[in-house]
Amino acid sequence: MAHTPSAPPSEPQPRVDGRADDELRPITLTRGWLDHAAGSVLVEFGRTRVLCAASASEGVPRWRKGSGLGWVTAEYAMLPSSTHTRSDRESVKGRIGGRTHEISRLIGRSLRAVIDYKALGENTITLDCDVLQADGGTRTAAITGAYVALADACGWLGSRGALKGTPLTGSVAAVSVGIIDGVPRLDLPYEEDVRAETDMNIVMTGDGRFVEVQGTAEADPFDRAMLDSLLDLGAKGCADLTVIQREALGG
Amino acid sequence: MAHTPSAPPSEPQPRVDGRADDELRPITLTRGWLDHAAGSVLVEFGRTRVLCAASASEGVPRWRKGSGLGWVTAEYAMLPSSTHTRSDRESVKGRIGGRTHEISRLIGRSLRAVIDYKALGENTITLDCDVLQADGGTRTAAITGAYVALADACGWLGSRGALKGTPLTGSVAAVSVGIIDGVPRLDLPYEEDVRAETDMNIVMTGDGRFVEVQGTAEADPFDRAMLDSLLDLGAKGCADLTVIQREALGG
Amino acid sequence: MAHTPSAPPSEPQPRVDGRADDELRPITLTRGWLDHAAGSVLVEFGRTRVLCAASASEGVPRWRKGSGLGWVTAEYAMLPSSTHTRSDRESVKGRIGGRTHEISRLIGRSLRAVIDYKALGENTITLDCDVLQADGGTRTAAITGAYVALADACGWLGSRGALKGTPLTGSVAAVSVGIIDGVPRLDLPYEEDVRAETDMNIVMTGDGRFVEVQGTAEADPFDRAMLDSLLDLGAKGCADLTVIQREALGG
Amino acid sequence: MAHTPSAPPSEPQPRVDGRADDELRPITLTRGWLDHAAGSVLVEFGRTRVLCAASASEGVPRWRKGSGLGWVTAEYAMLPSSTHTRSDRESVKGRIGGRTHEISRLIGRSLRAVIDYKALGENTITLDCDVLQADGGTRTAAITGAYVALADACGWLGSRGALKGTPLTGSVAAVSVGIIDGVPRLDLPYEEDVRAETDMNIVMTGDGRFVEVQGTAEADPFDRAMLDSLLDLGAKGCADLTVIQREALGG
Amino acid sequence: MAHTPSAPPSEPQPRVDGRADDELRPITLTRGWLDHAAGSVLVEFGRTRVLCAASASEGVPRWRKGSGLGWVTAEYAMLPSSTHTRSDRESVKGRIGGRTHEISRLIGRSLRAVIDYKALGENTITLDCDVLQADGGTRTAAITGAYVALADACGWLGSRGALKGTPLTGSVAAVSVGIIDGVPRLDLPYEEDVRAETDMNIVMTGDGRFVEVQGTAEADPFDRAMLDSLLDLGAKGCADLTVIQREALGG
Amino acid sequence: MAHTPSAPPSEPQPRVDGRADDELRPITLTRGWLDHAAGSVLVEFGRTRVLCAASASEGVPRWRKGSGLGWVTAEYAMLPSSTHTRSDRESVKGRIGGRTHEISRLIGRSLRAVIDYKALGENTITLDCDVLQADGGTRTAAITGAYVALADACGWLGSRGALKGTPLTGSVAAVSVGIIDGVPRLDLPYEEDVRAETDMNIVMTGDGRFVEVQGTAEADPFDRAMLDSLLDLGAKGCADLTVIQREALGG
Repeated sequence: MAHTPSAPPSEPQPRVDGRADDELRPITLTRGWLDHAAGSVLVEFGRTRVLCAASASEGVPRWRKGSGLGWVTAEYAMLPSSTHTRSDRESVKGRIGGRTHEISRLIGRSLRAVIDYKALGENTITLDCDVLQADGGTRTAAITGAYVALADACGWLGSRGALKGTPLTGSVAAVSVGIIDGVPRLDLPYEEDVRAETDMNIVMTGDGRFVEVQGTAEADPFDRAMLDSLLDLGAKGCADLTVIQREALGG
Repeated sequence: MAHTPSAPPSEPQPRVDGRADDELRPITLTRGWLDHAAGSVLVEFGRTRVLCAASASEGVPRWRKGSGLGWVTAEYAMLPSSTHTRSDRESVKGRIGGRTHEISRLIGRSLRAVIDYKALGENTITLDCDVLQADGGTRTAAITGAYVALADACGWLGSRGALKGTPLTGSVAAVSVGIIDGVPRLDLPYEEDVRAETDMNIVMTGDGRFVEVQGTAEADPFDRAMLDSLLDLGAKGCADLTVIQREALGG
Repeated sequence: MAHTPSAPPSEPQPRVDGRADDELRPITLTRGWLDHAAGSVLVEFGRTRVLCAASASEGVPRWRKGSGLGWVTAEYAMLPSSTHTRSDRESVKGRIGGRTHEISRLIGRSLRAVIDYKALGENTITLDCDVLQADGGTRTAAITGAYVALADACGWLGSRGALKGTPLTGSVAAVSVGIIDGVPRLDLPYEEDVRAETDMNIVMTGDGRFVEVQGTAEADPFDRAMLDSLLDLGAKGCADLTVIQREALGG
Repeated sequence: MAHTPSAPPSEPQPRVDGRADDELRPITLTRGWLDHAAGSVLVEFGRTRVLCAASASEGVPRWRKGSGLGWVTAEYAMLPSSTHTRSDRESVKGRIGGRTHEISRLIGRSLRAVIDYKALGENTITLDCDVLQADGGTRTAAITGAYVALADACGWLGSRGALKGTPLTGSVAAVSVGIIDGVPRLDLPYEEDVRAETDMNIVMTGDGRFVEVQGTAEADPFDRAMLDSLLDLGAKGCADLTVIQREALGG
Repeated sequence: MAHTPSAPPSEPQPRVDGRADDELRPITLTRGWLDHAAGSVLVEFGRTRVLCAASASEGVPRWRKGSGLGWVTAEYAMLPSSTHTRSDRESVKGRIGGRTHEISRLIGRSLRAVIDYKALGENTITLDCDVLQADGGTRTAAITGAYVALADACGWLGSRGALKGTPLTGSVAAVSVGIIDGVPRLDLPYEEDVRAETDMNIVMTGDGRFVEVQGTAEADPFDRAMLDSLLDLGAKGCADLTVIQREALGG
Repeated sequence: MAHTPSAPPSEPQPRVDGRADDELRPITLTRGWLDHAAGSVLVEFGRTRVLCAASASEGVPRWRKGSGLGWVTAEYAMLPSSTHTRSDRESVKGRIGGRTHEISRLIGRSLRAVIDYKALGENTITLDCDVLQADGGTRTAAITGAYVALADACGWLGSRGALKGTPLTGSVAAVSVGIIDGVPRLDLPYEEDVRAETDMNIVMTGDGRFVEVQGTAEADPFDRAMLDSLLDLGAKGCADLTVIQREALGG
């Protein structure tokens, strides 16, 4: 949506919450938040709060039956009261919006990158990621929390003898990065997100490889050097999140 | 769904959680659970957990414009992971089920019973009641919590000078009662709810009058004496909840 | 929706149609109104006119297959031209409204209260209750008429040797009661219905037990004494309807 | 759907109900069947029974506003219990089928052929044609009955001084014709309809001109001579119906 | 929609494109326009351009399984950019309009008139007719082109040994005719179509029999003589199209 | 979806169509393919064929009214017959799938990156990108073609005096890149797309800056070196496409 000649970048403002540009917001991962789910995590990235619940069920979707392979899928949604101004329910509107579809698909793909379908056997794990409060970065918080819920669901299945091996081949975490006033910053809250010239979501495995890279020039298209600095920053953030995930899982 | 001659009522079992028949589950009302909403309450009736958020907006639905009167409405929904077995999202199914409609309408009516539309002015308050975990009595927990969120939203509007008077004419609380093994019991958890021969939801004002009475013979139709004992028990439960609401609101 | 201090009840007006407060409107039950249905009844409560048709089919919904038990369900709808002002078709709107859902579910539950599923065998009876003209009390007229259509459908199935016993364990009838100008009245037409402070629908078996009790304070919440008088009045009305049903069925 | 070489036409059977090939079923037009509608007619073609209700409202659809011209539209639907085997509700399915759409549009076009929009003024008349019992020819019965309801609605509007002139420029009636066992027949009941090789619906004005001609070879394509004989038969049937309409309207 | 007394027909204008009244627009049938489909034809009637693609799949709809008979069906749609002013997508609106349904059904019926289901075996051929550019007569162009795609799909199935015989029992073509300024004309472009007093679509087999005749008085109802002249003109047009189809198919 | 330990990369196969790894498929851009649209382009990337039509209309969506700014939006869809195996219509399914939403949004964002909303004035340009034949890379072909249609629509608006300046601030093109057998390749056809371990879509401006970068590890997560080589390859492809776009536009 670039069109006005960019003004010479003004002196960048410090971040509202006083963080360094490459610093995450306070992250918490509360496991076992629900009594019934096979795995459940309340994940918080600052004021962003997402409930990630993993439900495990025997069987797989029809197109996969008899393959011996499992399946992992995800559904993302926002509570109407999670946003600054109340948003309408998609169930009331009778249709799911493009953004919701897009994020649900992204979460599912990200988690499947670390799943060995054969070891999972013909089981399906569904990750419900419901945003209770939104303050930027809900999709990356959802992926980061959903991985932990997924790990718990795998443990739950394993303890019931329902697995054919170890389904998790690694861990996965995600973070947003963006350019604010010409400066790359990590883990944007809502206030920074709306001001970002460029916005990028990065999903990486615990061993530092990329699963998804999605960058969008909300305002001015960006050059290769800027892209490189965003990728560096995202890799740093994902590495930090991986440590937090490991601690949460007691490892 | 009665059809077999009822067996002579077996000796009634004590309640699973050791409660007396006329005793509520542990109730908690946590105000201010969200940062943005005009009022928000996490209400817990034992393991049942409902997030009640009140959003206030200027203006009223079209059919009410120019009347000088406000409006209060409610939407109820369950997270897919809230139930013992995961339930499908209504947004994915593309239509809202009859039960959801029914409960949303009940909550809205119940709250409107204690609202003075004129004092509210042409403002709309929407109560979103999202069940995070379901263990019986979600609709009555929702009404009980939503009243507190509504009170906070009225305070919020008042502090902004947006009101024409005092919109709340009283308080409202709700509880379920039922007959289990021939014995009337208060505030049924899921396990008792599915076994109940008769199930009744009672909504009352803080001064002890009825707003809604909904009783259904899930199994054997019930006689007038049984109905009277259920009404007595519900009145007792609503009175107890009224005390808890007052305490939560600091009164 | 109470808010203004109730004025001292004015001297109650006599009823528009000259009825006593505890008197039903003229009731007619015309059996066999359709040529194809297993049972069909045109029920009239004054000017309210509902066509109740029972269709019987072999088999039960999927979740009940192989149980040996039958099923009874109902669908309620209003013709667009049935109301004082034409209402839009739900098929055109593409979704069924909350009120329609609610009433369909009520009718189904009410009829199932007098069904022995085992005796019915794995058959499904669907009751279609289509309001041809609405003048208040359509849901209670529908239940009262649908019971007679259901009885005819059971007879029809029996004459084909499709039953395992006698599916009907009793009869069921329903009536509305309400408080108008502070006075309890039976079987409200539309004009009284919109003026009622409190509105209650009562469904009872032929032997005088309650199947459903649904009371709503449209305006002022009501006290226990008023509730008791409404229950008495409803019981009287259901007893009268039971007599009319028996006569219609030639018993 | 022709494909097998047609067998030499067997000796045609007499009609089940003993009618001559060019004879209508018993036709009745009961005016004023509803209390609220501007015009309402219960039309019966033998066992086919359609309730036609005309609702008049001030104003026209948006695309016609300010033109000074009125509008006439129609909606056709079948009750689930109207058919030999119960059919699902379109409101429950959430979408209107092609056949319903097609017939609604046909009825609307047919009636508009005899309307002077200027004389109608900016009023809309909606014709609801709800099939209570279906035994073939429901769309032609609907048109024939809807014309009478439309005439009554015009009278109703006129008596309220809401018209700018005389909106009806003529009358309109419709009938089905078909080829059974090689013989053209008038006004087919369901049993003949399903056996017809060719099926045609003819809509004509009272002065003998065509409004719609819709012929379909359900089996063998038909030649021009056969087409001509069907047109003759349809014209005869419409003329008979015109007489019956005039009588019903007291003219 | 006739209502004003028709003015004496003014001297008819010559056609915009200089054609004779009984002359088709330039017709082209381009076979094999797509690489994957079993048959595909880009059909052009002047500026009207429709892509007709035939997909063949093993198996038939559920209601036909085990019958040994095949099935042919069609779906018609318009690209949003095909019309003079952009039209909204039906996928975005979430529902298919009546006109689309009507035309899809017409195309399917027309093609089935020349199919021997037994020879087709339990295969389904779906004809997708997507209007790329609309300039009147899209449905008749679609039928004319779809027949050629269908013939190619039959050849494709035959070459794979998937047939039980020769499914095509003949050919089928379609054309529109109408009355403009009192004069019957063949194959109307958009500009003439909107001005036509009467509009008729005629579908005929290659041996000159009628499959469908659909005539509508858009303005004045028409008399029998006018109807006869339209039928003559349509028969002439279909005969011309049959020749062009044969040439396209190399016969 | 990685899970099996990757086999040592086999010797990479040459490309099916003999192209070099950094070579585009034959690209054609046919302007003016439709008669009515403000701009229309049939774009071909090998056998992938997308019709891009730009419709211009006065006014903007409601949320933008009175801002003096224009709007550009896009809708992507696939014809059912465009895919190797016929796919169901989204209009028939009644809902738009996640992939369609995602791509429509991507195209819109990409084009808006080179639009000066002020210069466009309060006009809306809608780009309809309908896939006529799909052989991989439909979304990148759509963006590349839609840019040319957009340029034509701007010219069309300019020639009518409807603009406030020059809305295009640059050009935009897009291409897919992927890793096949461990080797980065440009512009994947369907056959390569399904085999790709990693798949990336790159959207760039004519002056070599990034608008969107979307990379997904369909199989093994990828490291930074591989990501860098994909970005280089994409930049090369977009530069080549920019030359072709300029030529097509006569520049």
